[in-house]
Amino acid sequence: MARVVVDVMLKPEILDPQGQAIARKLPQLGFEGVAAVRQGKRFELELDGPADEAALEEVRKIAETMLANPVIETFEIHAL
Amino acid sequence: MARVVVDVMLKPEILDPQGQAIARKLPQLGFEGVAAVRQGKRFELELDGPADEAALEEVRKIAETMLANPVIETFEIHAL
Repeated sequence: MARVVVDVMLKPEILDPQGQAIARKLPQLGFEGVAAVRQGKRFELELDGPADEAALEEVRKIAETMLANPVIETFEIHAL
Repeated sequence: MARVVVDVMLKPEILDPQGQAIARKLPQLGFEGVAAVRQGKRFELELDGPADEAALEEVRKIAETMLANPVIETFEIHAL
């Protein structure tokens, strides 16, 4: 059994209020040196079989269909 | 300016209803071969300076304080 990660992030041009809220709060908590924060999602998929080319292509379709909204988000897939 | 990623996932013993809902839905959409899905969060932090040891230690404190709930979540930090 293989494990595959799908990282989903908002496109750079899409506003990320959650990330901005975190970034604004950091100095108040004494944390300096962070210019910006972006918040996204991480999915770990456990496959029945190996993470071969066919499986990764299937994961790509899953990411497009269910895990990311291609209009506002990008995703990256990598095997663990 | 360096970029650092903080991946936050629920601990394995913590139930993940979001991930389970996705995993259950996949066969109905024609996707076979995925045994389990876990959903977590991914944060990208843009630092003012380099991602040296001191900066990564600061990010670790930020992750513990603001990005993850150490009672139910684990996190991993890596520079991009």
